[in-house]
Parts: sequence; structure tokens; C-alpha cells
Amino acid sequence: MPSISEKGRSMPPSPIRKLVHYAEEAKRKGIKVYHLNIGQPDIKTPEVAIEALKNLNINILEYTHSAGNESYRRKLSDYYRSIGIGIDYTNILITTGGSEAVLFALMTCVNPGEEVITPEPFYANYNGFATAAGIKIIPITSSIKNDFALPPIKEIEKKITDKTKGIIICNPNNPTGYLYSKEELFIIRDIIKKHDIFLFSDEVYREFCYDRAEHYSAMLLDGIEQNVIMLDSVSKRYSACGIRIGAIVTRNYEVLGTALKFAQARLSPPGLGQIVAEASLDTPAEYFRSVNREYTMRRNFLVEALNKIPGVYCPKPRGAFYTVVGLPVDDADRFAQWLLEEFEYKKQTVMIAPASGFYSTPGLGQNEARIAYVLNIDDLKNAVEVLHEALKVYPGRTMH
Amino acid sequence: MPSISEKGRSMPPSPIRKLVHYAEEAKRKGIKVYHLNIGQPDIKTPEVAIEALKNLNINILEYTHSAGNESYRRKLSDYYRSIGIGIDYTNILITTGGSEAVLFALMTCVNPGEEVITPEPFYANYNGFATAAGIKIIPITSSIKNDFALPPIKEIEKKITDKTKGIIICNPNNPTGYLYSKEELFIIRDIIKKHDIFLFSDEVYREFCYDRAEHYSAMLLDGIEQNVIMLDSVSKRYSACGIRIGAIVTRNYEVLGTALKFAQARLSPPGLGQIVAEASLDTPAEYFRSVNREYTMRRNFLVEALNKIPGVYCPKPRGAFYTVVGLPVDDADRFAQWLLEEFEYKKQTVMIAPASGFYSTPGLGQNEARIAYVLNIDDLKNAVEVLHEALKVYPGRTMH
Repeated sequence: MPSISEKGRSMPPSPIRKLVHYAEEAKRKGIKVYHLNIGQPDIKTPEVAIEALKNLNINILEYTHSAGNESYRRKLSDYYRSIGIGIDYTNILITTGGSEAVLFALMTCVNPGEEVITPEPFYANYNGFATAAGIKIIPITSSIKNDFALPPIKEIEKKITDKTKGIIICNPNNPTGYLYSKEELFIIRDIIKKHDIFLFSDEVYREFCYDRAEHYSAMLLDGIEQNVIMLDSVSKRYSACGIRIGAIVTRNYEVLGTALKFAQARLSPPGLGQIVAEASLDTPAEYFRSVNREYTMRRNFLVEALNKIPGVYCPKPRGAFYTVVGLPVDDADRFAQWLLEEFEYKKQTVMIAPASGFYSTPGLGQNEARIAYVLNIDDLKNAVEVLHEALKVYPGRTMH
Repeated sequence: MPSISEKGRSMPPSPIRKLVHYAEEAKRKGIKVYHLNIGQPDIKTPEVAIEALKNLNINILEYTHSAGNESYRRKLSDYYRSIGIGIDYTNILITTGGSEAVLFALMTCVNPGEEVITPEPFYANYNGFATAAGIKIIPITSSIKNDFALPPIKEIEKKITDKTKGIIICNPNNPTGYLYSKEELFIIRDIIKKHDIFLFSDEVYREFCYDRAEHYSAMLLDGIEQNVIMLDSVSKRYSACGIRIGAIVTRNYEVLGTALKFAQARLSPPGLGQIVAEASLDTPAEYFRSVNREYTMRRNFLVEALNKIPGVYCPKPRGAFYTVVGLPVDDADRFAQWLLEEFEYKKQTVMIAPASGFYSTPGLGQNEARIAYVLNIDDLKNAVEVLHEALKVYPGRTMH
């Protein structure tokens, strides 16, 4: 039997792969598992999007243009202009989800062996795309102690070598929910400009900002127009994760032209998804206001309730729908498994995503977990109660 | 401005990229362009597939499982069993089109710098995926003189080095339409077995075999069960190219488990496409019979009509819906451009895909072109007439 590749062997498995098995076992035993681990919102996809599918009037589900349907690209550029990002449709390449946007951007800009810096904890799949592209992710550690703010400029600059090809940020952040301030983005801009490297800005949670906080896009930064590559997706914005429609947006036509070659090899992004995404752009503003109210309520409840549990610390993030919490446990991986394998409270338990999977520095995040608030408020209440009870009896409990 | 990557620079552009521009120019001048260059069939997607979309009863377009919906994988495995391929759903990983199946298979099995052998002319995008994966495609040349049959075994073995990790075949073949015989597949099996390398078998045109010829799947080959990776897609089978649903099918669970890690990083294949693909499996047999009749008629017409043009040689392929023809021209690239830029006949012209883009040995295919018969018979008649007239006056015409 021929051996698989080194790249295949070193591809990181999903950080919760083992836990999924235990969750299934728990369900088999009749235990209700609250999934605090996932990024799949329970919010409905806008009606205009679903209607577009039902009213579909086509006979052949054809390839679309490799860069995406021009009608969709034009309408999407209107949306970007409406939020102050002055680009046109020629600055947009439609991708198969935000995932492909990240992969194409890295393969287009970074040579195998070169490095991209990112604040950790970071979206775990960046590791997978980096491995696929043969490049290295270099972490700069942000800390729960200051709610995962951007690390100081000198910490970032320390990591810059002649192999550094760019910085990747996720803003608002998955997993921490942290929303970078304009000032923090100016710091990043200065570094990008000084070293003339790329800024990959993953802004898929743009619409999810709370407390009237405003999202400041990397596309607005002056003086680094040719360096910024925005990575976007409609998955979260319209609660349409399954349609797999994302985008690379940049003013750098060399990057776009090169990414297009990767896009041409895979022929086209999903056609049906593009129809849904295009229709979604007509979603009424009230949809977003109501989604925002809902998430604000969930976050407020979750953060307050978690902080009431002795030994737990939960920052109050202003974006996305995740938070990374500090737990009074020896090892969050062990705790997460124990919750599914050995614990139950009134026939219920919870699944959390241990934060170690979001750090690349070994040992970090050991007593942290990412918790998503994509469940309705009643489920969240039950889930927090379960977590509270669990921490009373978990054998590896530590005192802070 | 930071420089793009070497990989990005060396990604091959679409072989017809330049021609697309000239085709647009011709259309702007009011000239009707017959697209003999494309692989987008004009055949309707089965009604059951379109109906599935219209009757959709879901509120949230969620992520699916990274390996694809289990219901679809189960039903797909029934289909494979119905054509004699004894596997179950655990042998299937659903991918975003056949494209992703090729990319994941190569990244899973082949290290950067290693080699995969393929008969040329070959599907041009294999080059793109190979470049993305950092691997090398090593061609063994098949010839129009014997209608693109498999090259002799000793020619294949000559190319095997310690860097060879597998052989990739496309059967029925794009671009030649050649259908490999059982005997040819046995030869390939013996080589695969002797050298214990992978066999990547791209069988997306399986349903398109003519003259009662039978397709013999690589999955049926004895003794290399752990070496065979079938790459499949529903794009052509159900004329649903735009839904982007393909599959990796193999009995090798190490390969599947590793490919799954790449699949997890990109979260899920398109959800709507999977719904369509699953529904398509109920397509009545008459659909395929009528499609087969239609393509047989088109092929018969096209091959006969092309061979009547002085100096043109067209093999009679038994599969897919392409043929590579020999043309009495100095350079098919130049001829293809001239057709769009300078020629018209009754306000019509044709676009062909120069075969040079399907060879990786420099200089080969210079007087060949791939012609697809995905147009209706009236359009094909006009297109062949245009080609006939064009060859009468093309300045670079050669005599054979």
C-alpha cells in the first residue's frame, strides 16, 4: 500500500474530532447535549434568499464564471460601497466560502516555507489552509487578561523576519469575539507599510458588532491599498453557511489576476449559492437589527451568567458570537471530554471547544474554552446551569 | 507592493483565456460565435433535481457534514453498487466538484516535488491542481494516429522513477473522448501493482459511452484495492456543472481519513448542491437513454462531417463529448485566434480549444484542437460549415 503524503499526515485534524465521538455516545445514552462548541447559527436565513430558490426559473444548472456571476459581483460591490468601502466589481473574486478565499489568498501571496503572523488564539482552520499551502503561521499571543486585545507593537515586530509575508487578522475575532479598534488597525497598518507585507483581513463577522461599536474595515486603511486583501463570506451575515459563498476583495489587481488562475482551475464557485447570496443582498435592514438584538441579549446573559460561576472569567466581547472563557480546570480538553463522557445533570450536558486548538504555542489555552452563543436563550440558560453544576464536581477542578 | 508567490506566478492560466477576449470582441461586432470549445452541456438538468429545489422546506441553509450528508452518501453508494462497484457510504467523501476531488487526492497522496504520470493530451486543469499541490505531472504521449489509445506499457514504465507516486487517468477521456478498454486497464493495474503506486481514476464521463461500449471502472480492478482512488462528479452525469458536487471514492481508509482533514478545514461541500445531487439519483433511466441517443447522433454527425473537410482527421471516440481533431493548419492557437479575430462566414464563426493546452510536452498538439459536441445538431451543422469555409481561406493552411 503506497504511503500518504507528509502534508496529509501533518494536516491538523479538527480540534474537536475526538469530542464529536463522545457527544454521539452521550446522545445515544439519551442525554441532551447543548452545543456551545459550534459556529452554526440558529438564526433563519432571510426569506428573500429562500424565495429566490423556490422561484428559480432555470433548466440547466450551468457553470458560472470562475470569478463569480458578474450580476452578483456588481450587487456585492454596491453593498461594500454602502458601508464605505470604495471598490467596484472588478475588485471582487467570488470564492467557495470564506475558506477558499483564505486558501487562494495564501497560495497567491505566500511561498511554501514563508510565514504569516497572526494573533493567537486564532481560527483553527488557518492552520489547515497554511499546511495545505505549505506555509507557516507564526502566532503573537494575546491574553484573556486584557480581553484578547492586540498585542503590543513591539511583540508583533519581534516576529517579523525576512520570511514574513503578511499578517492575518480576523475582525471581529473568531474565537475571542474581540473587535479591533481603529487605533489598533492603525498600528497594524504602520507595520504593514513599514515592512511592505500583505494584510489578510478576515471580516466575515462584520455585521456582528454590539454596544453600538463600529467595525472598521482594513479596506479603509490609507497608504496600504495594494497590501490589503479582505476575506469575506456570506455564511454568517445571512446565516447561510451551507451555500459556500465567500469572496476575495482587494484593490491589488495582480493578486486578483493570480487568484483567478486558482479559481479557473476549479471552474466555478457554487451557482445556486450565488443565486441565494445575490438575493440576500435585498434583506431588509430590520433583519439585521433583530439579529443584533438577539445576539446582544444572548451575549449579555451568557457573559453575566458565566462570570457568576466561581472561578470562571468571561470577557465581554463586542463582536462575532463567540467568547473565550477562563475555566477553573486542570485541562480544558480533559474537562470537555469528561463533560460528554462522564457527566450529566438532569439528563443534560454541554459540549465546549477547548481553546488549546486555537493556540499554536504549546501549552497555551489549557484552561480556556471557546463558547458560542448561537443557541436560543432558553438553551443557553440550561447550558450554563449544566456547566455550573459540572464545575462543582469535576475532579480536575482548580482554584483561582 | 509585496510580490506574489512563485506558485501563483507559475499557475497555468486557462488555455483559452486569451481567446475569450477575442470571442467577446467578435460578439460585440454582431458575429454569432459557436462554442465548440466548452464542456458545458446544453442538456437539461433532470426535472427531479430542479423540483427538489423548488420544494425545499428549510429555514436555515446550514453547514453539512464535512464529508457530505450521510443520506446523500448512502444513496450514492447504492448507485455505485448498481453499476457493480461494491462499496458503501464510508468509502465516499463528497467534494466541491470533481475539481476538489482531484486537488484533495493529490494533496493527500503526493508530496511536493513528487510525480504523477498521465497520458497526454490530458485535462488541462490537472496542471493547475498539480501546481497548487506543488507536484509534477509527467506525460506519456498518446497519439491521434492510433486514436489516442493507451501508450505501450514500456513507454509508461520508462517514466517511472523513485519520485513517481501514481498514475492519473481520465476514462472516458477529456479531451480525446477515448474509452479505455478492459485490457488497457489490466495493463495499468499491473504497473500500479508492480510499483505499488496510486491510481487516480477520473471517471466523471462514465455515463457517456457510445456504440454499446461498456465503461470499466478502475474500482473493479483486482489486487490494487488499496491503490485506487476514483474521482467523480455529478456535473456531467446530470448536466449540473454549477452545483459543484463531486466525490472521492476509495477503499483506502487512510486516504479517506486524510482527505477528510482537508475537507474539515473547508467546513463543508455545498449544501444546496448536495440536495440536488441526492434528488438526481432518482432520475429515470429514460433520461440517460435519450441523452445517449442525442450525443451519439451529434458525434456521428460531427465525426463524419469533420472527416469530409479536406486535410481534417477526426477519430471516432466512444466516450465523453469531446474529440481531438487534426487540422491542416500551421498552428492551432493562431488558427483559433484568427477564427475569432479575422474570420466570419455569414456573420458566424467558431471558437475551438487549441490542443496545445492539453499537452505538457512542448510543441505537441500544434495542429490539433479539442472540439466538444455539447451544442444541438443545427448549431453543430453551422459550426462545421463555418470551419470548412475557414479552412479554405486561412492563410496558415498546410497540406497533408
